[in-house]
Amino acid sequence: MTAAAVRGAGYFERHRDRFEGARQACAVRNCWSPFPELPAKYPDAAAAQARGLAAFQAHLGSDAPRLFELDQPGEADTLGEEVSPYTQAALGIRYCRADPDRLFDAAANALGDWSRVPVDTRIGVLMEVVDRLYREHLFEIAHAVMHTAGQSFNMAYTGSGVNALDRAIEALVYAHQAQHAVTPQAHWERQFGPSTIALQKTYRLVPRGVAVCFSCASFPTWNAWPSMMASLATGNAVIVKPHPATVLPMAISVRVFRQVLQEAGFDPNLVTMAPDSRDAPLGKILVRHPRTAMVDFTGSVQFGQWVERNAYPALSFTETAGCNTVVLESANDLDAALRSLATTLCMFSAQMCTSPQNIYVPARGVRTPSGTVALDEVGRRLAAAVDALCREPKKAAMILATIQSPQTLALLAQMQQQGAQRGQVLLAPRSYPHPEFPQARTSTPLMLQVGKGERDLYGEERFGPVSFVIACDDAADALAQATRDAREFGGLTAFLYSEDEGYVAQAEQAYAQAGAQLTINRTGAMPLNFAAAYSDYHVTGLNPAGNAALTHLAFVANRFCVTQSRRPLAPPVPIPPL
Amino acid sequence: MTAAAVRGAGYFERHRDRFEGARQACAVRNCWSPFPELPAKYPDAAAAQARGLAAFQAHLGSDAPRLFELDQPGEADTLGEEVSPYTQAALGIRYCRADPDRLFDAAANALGDWSRVPVDTRIGVLMEVVDRLYREHLFEIAHAVMHTAGQSFNMAYTGSGVNALDRAIEALVYAHQAQHAVTPQAHWERQFGPSTIALQKTYRLVPRGVAVCFSCASFPTWNAWPSMMASLATGNAVIVKPHPATVLPMAISVRVFRQVLQEAGFDPNLVTMAPDSRDAPLGKILVRHPRTAMVDFTGSVQFGQWVERNAYPALSFTETAGCNTVVLESANDLDAALRSLATTLCMFSAQMCTSPQNIYVPARGVRTPSGTVALDEVGRRLAAAVDALCREPKKAAMILATIQSPQTLALLAQMQQQGAQRGQVLLAPRSYPHPEFPQARTSTPLMLQVGKGERDLYGEERFGPVSFVIACDDAADALAQATRDAREFGGLTAFLYSEDEGYVAQAEQAYAQAGAQLTINRTGAMPLNFAAAYSDYHVTGLNPAGNAALTHLAFVANRFCVTQSRRPLAPPVPIPPL
Repeated sequence: MTAAAVRGAGYFERHRDRFEGARQACAVRNCWSPFPELPAKYPDAAAAQARGLAAFQAHLGSDAPRLFELDQPGEADTLGEEVSPYTQAALGIRYCRADPDRLFDAAANALGDWSRVPVDTRIGVLMEVVDRLYREHLFEIAHAVMHTAGQSFNMAYTGSGVNALDRAIEALVYAHQAQHAVTPQAHWERQFGPSTIALQKTYRLVPRGVAVCFSCASFPTWNAWPSMMASLATGNAVIVKPHPATVLPMAISVRVFRQVLQEAGFDPNLVTMAPDSRDAPLGKILVRHPRTAMVDFTGSVQFGQWVERNAYPALSFTETAGCNTVVLESANDLDAALRSLATTLCMFSAQMCTSPQNIYVPARGVRTPSGTVALDEVGRRLAAAVDALCREPKKAAMILATIQSPQTLALLAQMQQQGAQRGQVLLAPRSYPHPEFPQARTSTPLMLQVGKGERDLYGEERFGPVSFVIACDDAADALAQATRDAREFGGLTAFLYSEDEGYVAQAEQAYAQAGAQLTINRTGAMPLNFAAAYSDYHVTGLNPAGNAALTHLAFVANRFCVTQSRRPLAPPVPIPPL
Repeated sequence: MTAAAVRGAGYFERHRDRFEGARQACAVRNCWSPFPELPAKYPDAAAAQARGLAAFQAHLGSDAPRLFELDQPGEADTLGEEVSPYTQAALGIRYCRADPDRLFDAAANALGDWSRVPVDTRIGVLMEVVDRLYREHLFEIAHAVMHTAGQSFNMAYTGSGVNALDRAIEALVYAHQAQHAVTPQAHWERQFGPSTIALQKTYRLVPRGVAVCFSCASFPTWNAWPSMMASLATGNAVIVKPHPATVLPMAISVRVFRQVLQEAGFDPNLVTMAPDSRDAPLGKILVRHPRTAMVDFTGSVQFGQWVERNAYPALSFTETAGCNTVVLESANDLDAALRSLATTLCMFSAQMCTSPQNIYVPARGVRTPSGTVALDEVGRRLAAAVDALCREPKKAAMILATIQSPQTLALLAQMQQQGAQRGQVLLAPRSYPHPEFPQARTSTPLMLQVGKGERDLYGEERFGPVSFVIACDDAADALAQATRDAREFGGLTAFLYSEDEGYVAQAEQAYAQAGAQLTINRTGAMPLNFAAAYSDYHVTGLNPAGNAALTHLAFVANRFCVTQSRRPLAPPVPIPPL
């Protein structure tokens, strides 16, 4: 074993209990996390938050642009165009543009040692990365996510912090399982005619090579961390291609990966970053690069499908988005259901791949214990519930946060205009004043009510706080429309309210076929689209919302290959040289 | 549970011990099989062989064409163009052409029940298929393989019989493992603020849909059975597309699958066959069919790469072929090494995807305990060893068997002409008289000696008994050339003779990177390219010889998806109807 291997084995021992906890959680899929869910419960929280904020601020170029140093090979000129959705001012951070060929060279050089150490050595080093991100960079990354993706501080801490770290560990669990399913050695012995043939066999895990990992603008770490972990744990190298609007969270992450790898005795160029700009995008170049072995992509349906179609011979793992659907058939407590729906429609201004968009309601209304509530009344009450969340700026700031991209505001205006022509505007969007950041880019949700004939309007993801209440013939039609749209246009999540067990059972089957993860009759404190690592599978692969799931074996099992050598057991005999 | 599920569970119990043995073998990869390797050890062998021969003969249309009935939906006119390589006479078997759209319809209809029963029910039914093939059809299939693929009876019994059944069981083991990694249910409970949220979660395994399984002309069952098992065990349906020259073995197989499925209470249209003809090939139509979810392909590198490139959005699993390489650096017993090589070069006239083709030798020769044997002498002695195996017709018939396709004879003539111009003919091919079938299409091997400048000649698979002794600068160059060719042109197997442990270690690393499975210093009774189910991985996915391996988790894990539903634990409250 090399010194690096020995040190890496030490890391595995250090994190063994945490890893074992994760393994058990993945098996039974109960609620588990090694991390406190609330920022206040973080060890020595106030001091850690202050340090995190200071670390974030130290990245900013307040007077002159400031270079974020990664010390990568092949660095050329600099770029950087991040703007905080909270201040609408440039962050002033510059990153070195990197020559992709040099990154591939460096990654290829780094692969050998990394891919040849025992699986647990790699897992140990990557568990150390998780721990380092948690202990030393969590609040710094939370602020970086806030001021690029535009999330609220609490969501940045959880969704882009501890929950994303949980998904990272989860990927390591499956990488461990898939690789340990291959025995490293075997003794094989059989009769062939009168002879006994005895062979010693050695099986080697060989990585695919260099993976390119795209991270998205609104939720950079949640998919990127587990994707990076899946590739690295199986012996590959990773080049991260962050969205140009949201580079800093990944730059901090890449630096931590590089530091821990180097401390463990490995080549830091196993993880590099290839930032680009809107004017000179690198995405297609990287996907089509002859040395790209795998692509992990999170982002739009359109580019995701381009990746799936064009990645060959590279493998692709995509998570995009879609029309997440809601079916309202009946409810024991309709107002509680509408409040839950309203919260989820508002959460981070619906800039989540799990946010609901299309709400299918029978034309005759929704059954409740006190009678049927008419469709128009359901729309009105849902809009009122959303409006109630947006009226108080402090509450709105916590839930809605900001709008990541100015394009989203343009989309809202366009949708409002079309919606007014073709249906009814249930709730018009407006900016709300953020109590801490007066310049914040904000908007309350746009809600429209339309007939099912307006499918071209609601039949694709409208990224941002846009939702549609869709009048359907009846309950059966509502379910048929919703599941058809999820299957055709993509859908990660689905939400159903029904007290009719027969209908629920039909919906479970129909959504299973459509490939959307279904939440039934949930009301109360939990955001409906909350997805728990170790328990909730994210994306099914059965519809256009993506081809890869967080996390099961298929997410990792094809990232490495198995080669073998076999030879007789007899010892070799020396032969004189030429 | 449905009646079918109950019956299926009974099958699993019946075959539990056999399945458990296979599971353990896959874990430790030792030598194991539930089946006797020799035909003579089959239970009541003589009677079984006679019955098998009679069953085969009953398929033949001796006077008039005879229809092979499958009772599939959408049957139209008939086709059939199989010719026995042993008699060069038409088999006279007709198969119903099937309308692919009807097969997809029927498969889609069949999917529901099959995909919803417990995993072990499907595995049990498929273990029953394996058992039925073994107990009732093994010799019938062996004769069918002989008279279509042209294998010897012994190879047809083992390689296309019991070993292929072993690979089928192996695929079931991994399908079992990948699916049981997903718990069917979970209880999840967490605090959100002051509330406790408790959710009951249900996870469903959802198949991809309909898989198309291509089987090849020379080795139909060895890849097709495990591919079918992998798809079916994970809940999918399969349409088999046999090579038009070798339909009968798959037709018998498909009929057995259909019978067992029906007896177990499932829809037999889970497995259908879509035969085609050389004049009206169906392959590309099936790969591009919008309802194809997966493609398993065995055959040429060229068509395999077309499949990989064009299958999207279907997944592809390919096994093609390549330039399998041999490096001769030094040998403790050179003649023993050359005898082993000669046998392997002759085995089924090198019409195996694992047959060696390119033999790389240092220009100065091969080191042995009694001194260095010059390159020309090595070539001469290897040709003599091959010739010795071909001189005695009875022995030749057992080893060489026949030439599956007339095109192979044309290729031999063409290669001989080019080889004579650009190098040296070490051994010229000739027909040998088969002792039992005087009309058999036969050929002894063509062996050429060339310089490494003739890479366009040896740098692709020349399907059939063609091999090249290639003069390299030195030992290092021989290894570099061989591994580069495997990496670039594809290679499943590789064979090394060296008594230098440093060189062996280099070769193990280099071949691991090139993605060819390496056999070192093997002499004696075992054919060098023998691949044992449960122990030897077949194909790595690292070079153009295919993207899928028999068998590890990656072969099965992506054939199904996981969907979930979650709901509060509280019981539902009845609500009056509309």
